[in-house]
Amino acid sequence: MKAIEGGVCAAKGFSAAGIHAGVKASSSPDKNDLMLIYSQVPCHAWGMYTQNVVKAASVLVTMEHLKDGTAQAVVANSGNANACCDGSMENARRMAECAARALHVKPEDVVVGSTGVIGQTINIDAIEKAVPAAAKQLSTEGSPAAANAIMTTDTVPKEAAVSLEIDGKTVHIGGISKGSGMIHPNMGTMLCFLTTDCAISKDMVQEALREAVRRSFNRISVDGDTSTNDTCVLLANGMAGNGEIQSKGEAYALFAEALTALCIQLARRMARDGEGAKHLITCTVSGAKSEAAAEVIAKSVIGSSLTKAAIFGCDANWGRVLCAMGYSGETFDPDAVDVTFASDAGSIAVCRAGRGLDFDEALAKKVLSAEEVVIEIAMGEGEGSCTCWGCDLTYDYVRINGDYRT
Amino acid sequence: MKAIEGGVCAAKGFSAAGIHAGVKASSSPDKNDLMLIYSQVPCHAWGMYTQNVVKAASVLVTMEHLKDGTAQAVVANSGNANACCDGSMENARRMAECAARALHVKPEDVVVGSTGVIGQTINIDAIEKAVPAAAKQLSTEGSPAAANAIMTTDTVPKEAAVSLEIDGKTVHIGGISKGSGMIHPNMGTMLCFLTTDCAISKDMVQEALREAVRRSFNRISVDGDTSTNDTCVLLANGMAGNGEIQSKGEAYALFAEALTALCIQLARRMARDGEGAKHLITCTVSGAKSEAAAEVIAKSVIGSSLTKAAIFGCDANWGRVLCAMGYSGETFDPDAVDVTFASDAGSIAVCRAGRGLDFDEALAKKVLSAEEVVIEIAMGEGEGSCTCWGCDLTYDYVRINGDYRT
Repeated sequence: MKAIEGGVCAAKGFSAAGIHAGVKASSSPDKNDLMLIYSQVPCHAWGMYTQNVVKAASVLVTMEHLKDGTAQAVVANSGNANACCDGSMENARRMAECAARALHVKPEDVVVGSTGVIGQTINIDAIEKAVPAAAKQLSTEGSPAAANAIMTTDTVPKEAAVSLEIDGKTVHIGGISKGSGMIHPNMGTMLCFLTTDCAISKDMVQEALREAVRRSFNRISVDGDTSTNDTCVLLANGMAGNGEIQSKGEAYALFAEALTALCIQLARRMARDGEGAKHLITCTVSGAKSEAAAEVIAKSVIGSSLTKAAIFGCDANWGRVLCAMGYSGETFDPDAVDVTFASDAGSIAVCRAGRGLDFDEALAKKVLSAEEVVIEIAMGEGEGSCTCWGCDLTYDYVRINGDYRT
Repeated sequence: MKAIEGGVCAAKGFSAAGIHAGVKASSSPDKNDLMLIYSQVPCHAWGMYTQNVVKAASVLVTMEHLKDGTAQAVVANSGNANACCDGSMENARRMAECAARALHVKPEDVVVGSTGVIGQTINIDAIEKAVPAAAKQLSTEGSPAAANAIMTTDTVPKEAAVSLEIDGKTVHIGGISKGSGMIHPNMGTMLCFLTTDCAISKDMVQEALREAVRRSFNRISVDGDTSTNDTCVLLANGMAGNGEIQSKGEAYALFAEALTALCIQLARRMARDGEGAKHLITCTVSGAKSEAAAEVIAKSVIGSSLTKAAIFGCDANWGRVLCAMGYSGETFDPDAVDVTFASDAGSIAVCRAGRGLDFDEALAKKVLSAEEVVIEIAMGEGEGSCTCWGCDLTYDYVRINGDYRT
């Protein structure tokens, strides 16, 4: 498996486009807000969605359309969540229909995504007007424009792609995703569109996506808020020419591993680009009773406002790490816990067997000033381990969210 | 029942003191950091504690001491949590012992409280030196000094007291408490010391405290972080002269209601004085399936970082309220939900039947600019209702917690 260029268009037969449709009246003409992804042939496809009881219309429509496990295109906008509004279901269907017309595919084979403010009626006219223009711009070079179109408070677009050999054929997997607020592990995640030319059955598409999301997007948190619009979709068009993966053999393992690695890349970038974030926080828990226990504990640490604020301040306040472990819901022996802070700038042990160590405050400051800070926790209880990702809590997070609607 | 002066010394037979001991080397000599509460006679007493797996030594020692339901004094410090350190249990016991010597009571009848930074060894010498001096200053006027002594990032001391008639006698209940970070409903709460001269059996003390905490401190959140040190203790010395309350009759109901009202007063002040807070956020949920469902939903709303930041910005971003309800874990029909923002400055309906209303943005700004903002949610599903309290998320919260240890 190796990293390649091309993002969501890296896989054979996929093209994409992103343009400015003017979904939000106040948005800059330089900012794309509408995107299309298109596959030359129908794909085996599956989606995972927000666990929020309040689901956006785009989520409900996509769930309907992917019931048969088939899709050929994606239409998505930023600037409006199309949630909690009169006419939102109708507008989501209109998005699918106008994309279907422009791309000559069936409306039921179109995936719909929306992201932005909740509770305001979406400008469907602007979208219907822009979709044909976007369709004309579809290109295998279109991934950056599409990634740009789904950004909201994101500061950088998120694209990634990998290639690997399966069955003597080169298979590609690519994707784009967006954050960067209302992100918390209990989902099929944010907007994320994944494409592959791998030939793989519908069942195995579901299985691989479930596994990849569980180990990537479901292990990040920006602010503990699970969005109404989270959607992660994988489209597999089979054009790589490998023998179709139909069960959990060696080829499936290769594919699932590559897909998971790709999703982890995107997930890490989403956490790093969390609203207002200055640091990516990586929490690794080892020696837990089980992987599930390690995950609960790591998520509690990356979700702690106090730990996040301490990392923002480059303050080695490890007591907050123990505190967050303690209220995670998992039971454990606090007297067996070791905590170490690590980064490119070095590593510093701050707690051994549940007791604070004297440490070099200047070195700690240096370690915590790096862009990625790793909180290493050793539990001393078993073989379970897990890594989760989050970001620090900053003035900018408060600023961004103090006045988001305008 | 009426509000009275006197705080934790309002009840007959109780005195208190607070002084500067120098627990934290860097603290100002004007800031008290050690307090005593003393009852002339032994009390029926009960405590509720943090649910955090990592419990401070003060919590563990107090749990031991209150096993028999009897106490006569409280010693507590700020500036150090006495948690996750070598010698913390011994130091907590030494706090109880030196208070017992100075007050001529049994060490097992002393309640111990600590609050402050986790993981640093407490300056027990400073405490042992200061306790006899504090004992000499015990006075029925001592509540403000004691309330001051347990403050950490609190900006105002929290005292309250009420009197009521039971059995022809005037009964008093008073208390002091402190916040203001690491506060989240899953606890017997923060440091809170409650006193009463009501004659009431050990069983009924437990029952009344449990009920009061459930409806007050367990319904506030500042930051979602459940502390390692939360302790709430009620001391009842019986000196009011009423016939001892031994079961859940009329007298118990009067007492429990007054205790709950007192705790709600203190809880509201803790939320209002949450770290960095500019607003008290009150969330009322009505028409829910049950009280329990209403509580889960209200807690999710007051705990949402995005909702908190919106209130900081006086931005009527009600979509975040629906979003937080939706990920609360309760199921409900989003299309039956009404949301209204209200305050001293007026009231504004923003969502009816799950759909956004057009509303006057200028009036919304005015309503949300008030010190206390009420988020009124009507579910349209049943008779369950609940009120929870929180605060907004501000630049100051980030500033305070970016560099807390120094």
